[in-house]
Amino acid sequence: MKNLETLHWKGEESGRLVLIDQTRLPGEFVEIECRTVEQVWEAIKTLRVRGAPAIGVAAAYGVCLGLQTVAGADGPALLAQLDEVTAYLAASRPTAVNLFWALDRMKRTAAALAGRASPDRITAALLAEARAIHEEDRQMCRAIGRHGAPLLKGVEGVLTHCNAGGLATADYGTALAVVYTAVEQGQTLHVWADETRPLLQGARLTAWELHERGIDVTLICDSMAAVVMRERRVQAVITGADRIAANGDAANKIGTYGVALLAAAHGIPFYVAAPTSTFDLSIADGEAIPIEQRDPAEITHGFGRQTAPEGIGVYNPAFDVTPARLITAIICERGVIRPVDREQIAAVLGDEP
Amino acid sequence: MKNLETLHWKGEESGRLVLIDQTRLPGEFVEIECRTVEQVWEAIKTLRVRGAPAIGVAAAYGVCLGLQTVAGADGPALLAQLDEVTAYLAASRPTAVNLFWALDRMKRTAAALAGRASPDRITAALLAEARAIHEEDRQMCRAIGRHGAPLLKGVEGVLTHCNAGGLATADYGTALAVVYTAVEQGQTLHVWADETRPLLQGARLTAWELHERGIDVTLICDSMAAVVMRERRVQAVITGADRIAANGDAANKIGTYGVALLAAAHGIPFYVAAPTSTFDLSIADGEAIPIEQRDPAEITHGFGRQTAPEGIGVYNPAFDVTPARLITAIICERGVIRPVDREQIAAVLGDEP
Repeated sequence: MKNLETLHWKGEESGRLVLIDQTRLPGEFVEIECRTVEQVWEAIKTLRVRGAPAIGVAAAYGVCLGLQTVAGADGPALLAQLDEVTAYLAASRPTAVNLFWALDRMKRTAAALAGRASPDRITAALLAEARAIHEEDRQMCRAIGRHGAPLLKGVEGVLTHCNAGGLATADYGTALAVVYTAVEQGQTLHVWADETRPLLQGARLTAWELHERGIDVTLICDSMAAVVMRERRVQAVITGADRIAANGDAANKIGTYGVALLAAAHGIPFYVAAPTSTFDLSIADGEAIPIEQRDPAEITHGFGRQTAPEGIGVYNPAFDVTPARLITAIICERGVIRPVDREQIAAVLGDEP
Repeated sequence: MKNLETLHWKGEESGRLVLIDQTRLPGEFVEIECRTVEQVWEAIKTLRVRGAPAIGVAAAYGVCLGLQTVAGADGPALLAQLDEVTAYLAASRPTAVNLFWALDRMKRTAAALAGRASPDRITAALLAEARAIHEEDRQMCRAIGRHGAPLLKGVEGVLTHCNAGGLATADYGTALAVVYTAVEQGQTLHVWADETRPLLQGARLTAWELHERGIDVTLICDSMAAVVMRERRVQAVITGADRIAANGDAANKIGTYGVALLAAAHGIPFYVAAPTSTFDLSIADGEAIPIEQRDPAEITHGFGRQTAPEGIGVYNPAFDVTPARLITAIICERGVIRPVDREQIAAVLGDEP
C-alpha cells in the first residue's frame, strides 16, 4: 500500500517538522514545514494535523522546536523554556488526551536528566524521546491492526466516522489500521465513510486515504448511516477515540455517540480502536471529559459560502461521549478489551504509571 | 408573525406562478416568476420549490401554465395537452405523493367536465381547482397547528429535521405549524434545527424562517442531534413527511429515520406532521415507497467547492423510511393519529377516495 507520511522530522537537533496540511486535502497535497513551536501550535489548533495519536507525536516534536530558540542556554533556562513550551502546546486543543500524555513524557525525560546532564544532552534526549513516541505510534498502529483484524472475519461492509486512519497517526491509523490489516490478509472489505460534519474529515481524509490505498469506499452524509445499517450494507462499525475514561466511556468526534446508538439499534457491533495513550484513568467516566466547543462559522460558513442566516444560535461541540455500554470492544495495541468495563480496562492497562 | 409567501398565482387564466427561490436562501431573498410548465418542472426538480405540500400546489398551478400554450384549442386537444402536462410534471420528483395527488385532482376536475363544457370553462375550472388546492393547503397548515400544539404542552425544546415549515407549504408549514401555533398561544419554545445534509434545508430554510418569525433557533449538524437529546435540551421531535404508507411507515428527508431511532433511545416522543394528502393508502408499508437517488455531487461538491476526492463511491438517497413503531403520533389536518397503525389511519382517513 502507498506510503502517506502524516508527519516526519527532517534533520537532527536543529531540524524541522514536516506535516501533510490536512486542511488542504483532498483538493491539494501540500506538506508544510514547521520551524517554530508556534507553527506547530497553529497546525494543531487549525487541524492541519489532527487525530489524537498524530497530535501527540506532533506536540512532542513541537517541544523540540520550542527549545531551539534557547540553544546554548544553561540548564535552568532550558528547563524553564521546556515548561513554557509544554504549557503552550497543552493549550492548543483540550479533548485528546494523547497531547498531554506526549507532553508529560517529554517533561519526564528532561526531569530525569536535570542537574545530571548538559543542556545539549537534554536536548538530544528530548529529540530521541519524540522519535520514540513517533516510532511507538507506528508500532501501535500495526499492533492494533493485528489485534483488530480477526474481529472483521465474515464482515463485508464497515462503517467509520471521522478519520481514525493513517492521517490521524504516524502510520496506519487506529480504526483504519484494522481495515488495512484485514485487507492485507486477503479480505475484501467495503468501507462506508460518514462525511463527518462540520469539518468533513470523513469526506476529505478517510475517503482520500482509503482511495489512495486502493480500498473501496463509499461516502455518505452522517444522516445516512442509519439507512445504510438498515439496508444491511455494514456488519461492523469502527471508530477511533480522543480520550477514554477508566470505565470505558469514550470521547470521539461529534456524531460518534449517535452512530453507536444506531449500531446498537441494528444489532451491529461497535468497535473503538485507540492506543493505550488515549486512556485517561484519572477520569472515572465520560461525564468529566472536557468537550471542545468550536467556532460556529464551521457550521454556518463551512463550504466557503454562508449556508445559514445571520443572527441564529449555533451549537458546535467537537466531540461527544459514547458510553461504554454501547462499545462492543476496544482494540488497543495490547489486545482486545471486551467487555468494555473498568475491570477489563484495568487488567489490560494495569502496569501503566 | 411575518408573512413569507412560498408561492402565489399572479393574474387570472393567463397568469404566472411566483415562487420564492429556495435555493438562494438564506443569502438572497429572490422571487421567480414561472410562465411555463417547463419552468415549474425545473423549479421542482432543482428544489427551488420543495416540501411535499408546496410541490403539490406548485404542480397544480404548473398544469394551468402548461395549458396556456394551447389556449383556443378544442376540447380533445386541451385534454391531450392536460395528459401530457400532468405526465411531465409527475416525472419531476418520485417520492412526495402530494405531487401525484394534486395532479390527479386536476385530471379529475377536467374529466368531470370533458364533453360537457367548453375548453375555456375547463381551463377556468382547472385554475379554480389549483386555487382550491392552494387554499386547502393554507387551511391544512392551520388545522395541523391547532391539533398539534397541545402535544407540546410542557415542552421547552423541539428538534426538527429538514424543513417542514412555511417554505414547504403554502402557509404555516406542517411540523413548524405546530411550533408556530404553540408560540402564538403563548408558549416559549426553542427549536433545534438539524442542518440536514446534503442540501442544508435545515440551515438554509428552517433556521431562516424561524428567525424571520422571531422564534429562537439553534442550528446543529445532523450528527449532533444525539448529544442534544442526551443533554435533555429537547423534549419532542417533529418532522414532516413526503409519503406515508397505509400502516404508518413514513418517508421523509434522509436522516429522519436515524433521528427517530435516537429519539426512541432517549425516550423522547417523535411526531410526524403531514396533511392527509401525504398518505398513500395504496402502499401497504414503507418497503414499497420509491426513494429518489440524487446526484453524488450534492455530497462531494456541496456549496461550490469540492470536498471529497475524485473516483470514490457516493450513496445519496434523498429520503428514508421511518417505521410506524418509532412514530409516537401523526398530526394531520383532521386530528392526531395515535397510536400509529393501520386501524387508526383507516379510521381517520376512512372517507378518502
